[in-house]
Amino acid sequence: MRVFNFAAGPATLPLPVLLRAQAELVEHGGNGMSVMEMTHRSSMFKSIIDGAESSLRRLMDIPEDYAVLFLQGGATTQFAAVPMNLMHTGKADYIVSGNFAQKAAREAEKYGTARVVKSSKDKNFSYIPKTVRSDFDPEADYVHITTNNTIYGTSYRTNLPDVGDVPLVADMSSNILSEPYDVRRFGLIYAGAQKNIGPAGLTIVIIRKDLAEKGPIADFVPTMLRYDTQVKDGSMYNTPPTFAIYLAGLVFEDLEKNGGVAAAKERNEKKAKMLYDVLDASDFYRPVAQKEDRSIMNVTFTTPDPDTDARFVKEAAERGLVNLKGHRAAGGIRASIYNAMPIEGVEALCAFMREFEKKA
Amino acid sequence: MRVFNFAAGPATLPLPVLLRAQAELVEHGGNGMSVMEMTHRSSMFKSIIDGAESSLRRLMDIPEDYAVLFLQGGATTQFAAVPMNLMHTGKADYIVSGNFAQKAAREAEKYGTARVVKSSKDKNFSYIPKTVRSDFDPEADYVHITTNNTIYGTSYRTNLPDVGDVPLVADMSSNILSEPYDVRRFGLIYAGAQKNIGPAGLTIVIIRKDLAEKGPIADFVPTMLRYDTQVKDGSMYNTPPTFAIYLAGLVFEDLEKNGGVAAAKERNEKKAKMLYDVLDASDFYRPVAQKEDRSIMNVTFTTPDPDTDARFVKEAAERGLVNLKGHRAAGGIRASIYNAMPIEGVEALCAFMREFEKKA
Repeated sequence: MRVFNFAAGPATLPLPVLLRAQAELVEHGGNGMSVMEMTHRSSMFKSIIDGAESSLRRLMDIPEDYAVLFLQGGATTQFAAVPMNLMHTGKADYIVSGNFAQKAAREAEKYGTARVVKSSKDKNFSYIPKTVRSDFDPEADYVHITTNNTIYGTSYRTNLPDVGDVPLVADMSSNILSEPYDVRRFGLIYAGAQKNIGPAGLTIVIIRKDLAEKGPIADFVPTMLRYDTQVKDGSMYNTPPTFAIYLAGLVFEDLEKNGGVAAAKERNEKKAKMLYDVLDASDFYRPVAQKEDRSIMNVTFTTPDPDTDARFVKEAAERGLVNLKGHRAAGGIRASIYNAMPIEGVEALCAFMREFEKKA
Repeated sequence: MRVFNFAAGPATLPLPVLLRAQAELVEHGGNGMSVMEMTHRSSMFKSIIDGAESSLRRLMDIPEDYAVLFLQGGATTQFAAVPMNLMHTGKADYIVSGNFAQKAAREAEKYGTARVVKSSKDKNFSYIPKTVRSDFDPEADYVHITTNNTIYGTSYRTNLPDVGDVPLVADMSSNILSEPYDVRRFGLIYAGAQKNIGPAGLTIVIIRKDLAEKGPIADFVPTMLRYDTQVKDGSMYNTPPTFAIYLAGLVFEDLEKNGGVAAAKERNEKKAKMLYDVLDASDFYRPVAQKEDRSIMNVTFTTPDPDTDARFVKEAAERGLVNLKGHRAAGGIRASIYNAMPIEGVEALCAFMREFEKKA
């Protein structure tokens, strides 16, 4: 029996997608082979990657002057690729709203000055630092943010920073496709696939073409990390992660069938509200994130003490509610409720939370 | 119906592996979730990656002083990673036996002097350049070879170059696990998965630990491309390509069940001999690779003219023998017969070749 999997990533995938992938695993369509066995230069695979791109463009309303790339290496590789391609004057502004934002800034230090404009480290990243336009260097090559902080359960929602004309770069790994963002506000968006898109091993990059065309900042940039090369070759400078791209395409198609990103937002807000309502009505549970910055993807909280946290996680798992342990940097409990987490999973978790509190 | 897929990569996979992956796709074991949905830090996934590594170590007899890494980015990323980690004195020797070997050498030029010791470009890479120890610079950081040249169908077999004490680095993307190589003769072996290992999106690196421990050659090396970091974190500095690793583990297990690499060699030599025998008995077909350097993975040949080549490829496809078109750099016809190509596929191709010749 399938469990409800609250893992932060790799994370639960839509069941219809898994069933379809299963049905097609040995023979895809009339092609007589698995998608895994298709050469990436074939017309069969071309229709898969083109279909995935078109679907993502519709879902996110990606304008024509942006390229969509299907890459490898995860967001962590982008921590280097972004400055290696965009830091032409040698300075960029970073908002440090969590552990991964901090890692991104540190990696960028290898290629220039990555100035930390604001950080919420003072309160263990339990909030999103507030900024005004004058906080940013108008001469910076870009401003980097992390739209959703998986570990702490905080998120930029409609409150994107006003950075003026400087390109805004966003790590959207843990909330891409969870609610609409206006792509035109960004110079570059990147996301590891393993939360809302598909299996680990695929990274999506959405980049304004003029930024890619500037080329890398130095000769030492590996060809595979050059956005200009990847744009020119349509993500096929070498063999792309074909099966992961196929799975992503199925997830996109499933999301389109279910009303797209606007409908996903409604479902996600509903699921998140159910959990936050339990937290807010309780003296037993304590939410980790500040109210105004709460994520609708990762709901973080604690019980009165770490031993009880551990018991909560253990007893929940016995009920088929698994992977609720918080990240070691935040402690406590974390329920990751990405797009593919069905409302039934959240209902079951809320019921368990109320029951656990009563018994405690 | 499944076809016989002679693609150069991504390529055919063992049917038992695909059937098992299919059976487990929605629920793996008693875990209540797909492997794609498992967090990489879970004990379930840990047993998958550890199992894959152990199996590969047994298959290739990898000594304890070598690390095995499961990375992303393909061999092309390693073209940069190798010099970024090993080119400490700024010079390396490259044998250019094909298109990919040449690309590897050119990428290395970004990080130092990549000297082309010998090249077979003079005859469109139809042979493996012969070398003696004195051809190599004893002060070089490493010597780089490509053990199998997919495009041209040539291969190093037992005739590895004598490079003295300089670490030998090999791109084994297209013939790893096809026959035994003594890992102790290499400082580093790397291979994209999509020929003999599993789906595209996974790269195997086998590196002598002392070479990794030296660290990168400069501060600009991205963390994700540092071998020391990847060794230290067991390929989990960030989320690895979990599903591709699982598939690779299944392929390794299947190969162990079928007698390991020594038995694979026997099967591969038998399959290759069947095809080369047809070529050698014919005035109609012309082999591309010189006899003594023939690959047992990629068999390349031409008919009397390009139009007939094209007709051959088309008519073969109508019989369910697909992806036989040669690479544009070599032309003609290429039959890639990796480990997973069943002997029945080669028999069917041989029969078709004889028939096609008779009709022509």
